[in-house]
Amino acid sequence: MNTKQTQAGDKKHSANSQSLGKAAIELHRKLRGKIELHSKVLIESPEDISILYTPGVAEVCLRIAADKEKAYEYTSKWNNVAIVTDGTRTLGLGNIGAEAAIPVMEGKALLYKQFGNVDAFPICLRTTNADEIISAVKNISPVFGGINIEDIETPKALEIVERLSDELDIPVFHDDQHGTAVVTLAALLNAMRLTKRKPEDTSVVVAGAGSAGYGIVKILKAIGIKQIVVTDSQGVLSKYRPAETMNRFKLELVEIASQNAGKTEKLDDAIKGKDVFIGVSGVKNLLTPQMVRSMNKDCIVFPLTNPDPEIHPRIAAEAGARIIATGSYKFENRANNALVFPFLMRAILDKKIKKIGQTILVDVAYALADLVPKDKLSTFNIIPNVTDPRIQAAVNRAVHPHSR
Amino acid sequence: MNTKQTQAGDKKHSANSQSLGKAAIELHRKLRGKIELHSKVLIESPEDISILYTPGVAEVCLRIAADKEKAYEYTSKWNNVAIVTDGTRTLGLGNIGAEAAIPVMEGKALLYKQFGNVDAFPICLRTTNADEIISAVKNISPVFGGINIEDIETPKALEIVERLSDELDIPVFHDDQHGTAVVTLAALLNAMRLTKRKPEDTSVVVAGAGSAGYGIVKILKAIGIKQIVVTDSQGVLSKYRPAETMNRFKLELVEIASQNAGKTEKLDDAIKGKDVFIGVSGVKNLLTPQMVRSMNKDCIVFPLTNPDPEIHPRIAAEAGARIIATGSYKFENRANNALVFPFLMRAILDKKIKKIGQTILVDVAYALADLVPKDKLSTFNIIPNVTDPRIQAAVNRAVHPHSR
Repeated sequence: MNTKQTQAGDKKHSANSQSLGKAAIELHRKLRGKIELHSKVLIESPEDISILYTPGVAEVCLRIAADKEKAYEYTSKWNNVAIVTDGTRTLGLGNIGAEAAIPVMEGKALLYKQFGNVDAFPICLRTTNADEIISAVKNISPVFGGINIEDIETPKALEIVERLSDELDIPVFHDDQHGTAVVTLAALLNAMRLTKRKPEDTSVVVAGAGSAGYGIVKILKAIGIKQIVVTDSQGVLSKYRPAETMNRFKLELVEIASQNAGKTEKLDDAIKGKDVFIGVSGVKNLLTPQMVRSMNKDCIVFPLTNPDPEIHPRIAAEAGARIIATGSYKFENRANNALVFPFLMRAILDKKIKKIGQTILVDVAYALADLVPKDKLSTFNIIPNVTDPRIQAAVNRAVHPHSR
Repeated sequence: MNTKQTQAGDKKHSANSQSLGKAAIELHRKLRGKIELHSKVLIESPEDISILYTPGVAEVCLRIAADKEKAYEYTSKWNNVAIVTDGTRTLGLGNIGAEAAIPVMEGKALLYKQFGNVDAFPICLRTTNADEIISAVKNISPVFGGINIEDIETPKALEIVERLSDELDIPVFHDDQHGTAVVTLAALLNAMRLTKRKPEDTSVVVAGAGSAGYGIVKILKAIGIKQIVVTDSQGVLSKYRPAETMNRFKLELVEIASQNAGKTEKLDDAIKGKDVFIGVSGVKNLLTPQMVRSMNKDCIVFPLTNPDPEIHPRIAAEAGARIIATGSYKFENRANNALVFPFLMRAILDKKIKKIGQTILVDVAYALADLVPKDKLSTFNIIPNVTDPRIQAAVNRAVHPHSR
């Protein structure tokens, strides 16, 4: 029955995807770009040019030459963000190249603008070499107030973010890592409240050890969750596994989680008796109803892979999951990054945050969770909607200039 | 008397510059960026996100992955231009760094938008190394439909433009070289008409052998002007000069011009008995009234250096110059690049021109010159105003997809 249901679900989803795809093609052809540049001021006379351009602008240039920080005051730098990708991990489509990534980055820019009033420009790179990506981002950084690293394959993305965060004097936000971690924790905090769980007693399986898994494990640890097991396509992360199936970021996760894992343990073993499943695996239908049934009572299941989650929410519910959230707009409890990146970047730019540390991420997750009032908290309402007008103020309050 | 006049002129100009500078500072502080991103479409429902972003956008991505050219159809690439600088030659201010160049590049973006509806984004680079600049531009090229190289010191700029033009599949426009050449030729064509000169009989001194001088000499040659002498700070370009005062672009100019120049000849010698002076030297008051008096009758004097020309137009007129044009908005006959780059880039993008060759530049110069009707052509009216509504159509007609 479950299999049948899954097939029916797939068919419907497939038809839905097809019509969405068709609508997307039509709209994109009509728009020819979802974003464009606008002038904030109109030139109406030669004198206007003399003030906005040469020769008057020279005085502005000289002020900035004397003090680079003045670029935040006299230019668009304060609000410019580069959405940087190399197209190697665009959506779930794999390495489709820089040009093919543009529609996604423009979509992201649209969300940045509408929800955070951030001017985000797509920088889709022709190179997939980490050193060249780092060099390009550093070289174009003067006109930007922040960098958003997007859809770059791991572990390369994590290396790039680490190095750029060290070497740049502007904040480097990695949405796949940081954004996913924040929205996941926000949803989890409320799910734990509803199921009366405390961090120190809660056990979690994170399926997926890419950028998202890395960010999630680190934020779970930061709030005091100790029992964490991480799996990837080879099974549970472990120092006993062959070196070629690991990398230094996975080894870092082993230090945090999975300490006692044997080398043969798979997801279906690891999931038994656990409280929480968080899926960021990219694998559709990874989590079977049997696995959910093997979890603890009132278990929390977040199959976050987009657009096709690790388990269909209805099937998860039927198998006993008490609280379910996905990354998709098709279902309730939308734990989607859009809830985080426009608002968090706004706050980071306004408060001139230079480094994005765990404290900021945790504080923002709590702020988002707290937007759902206790009396409204329920199985299908654990996270605010992206259109909730209170989000920006809540995020602003949560982000402190000296947080790490 | 002349000296006195110059001093008086300087004082007035200095006061004017100060008040312009003050106005510029105030306006730039108020605007905090002259350009910003806008969304072309508003997200009003989760379904909108599904079409504009994930999952619907995947279909658009896949189409582009299958055929990169589709990026022109489905994304903003068709209209995006990167204004690339390294801040080494910003205005007349020298190497003031990437951040300090932003206000100029934003001003340029403003003109691009208002006059050409081109979405030009400032890319101010942290590196001044030619290879790194080329690498950065190539790497960010996928999201752009064209590149505008701006205010990079020569000969580096000429090398960069040459290599990028060869290696990129999008057009590389070098405003200092190409834009200046076109507007100068447009003004010169009408000045020659007014003074009844033919290209083959006209002798020209070009003062300045940087990007602008290089572009101007090449375009003068292209229309059949044969008697050209080029000077730089060391005097007339010549193969007899010490190698360290030359570079391969200057040697190329020697092949075109200055063939008979001895090694000691200076501007005051070279200018004698010439018909035309074109100044792109960056040196204020380089051309003395004595030099103008030594030129031919009805001579043409274009002191184009901005904001302070090689000679004040009034002084040049008093010394016998018949037709005068400058690059400044303060005087009549404004031979400013703004008359070229927004309109030319619009035509180049719309007609998918991949290489910007001499034919296109010459054709556009003739088109601009022809916008001044014969019966309106006069000493103070040799070039159309940037707000002339006929410019775009004229430039579009002049730019042919298969021109070189």
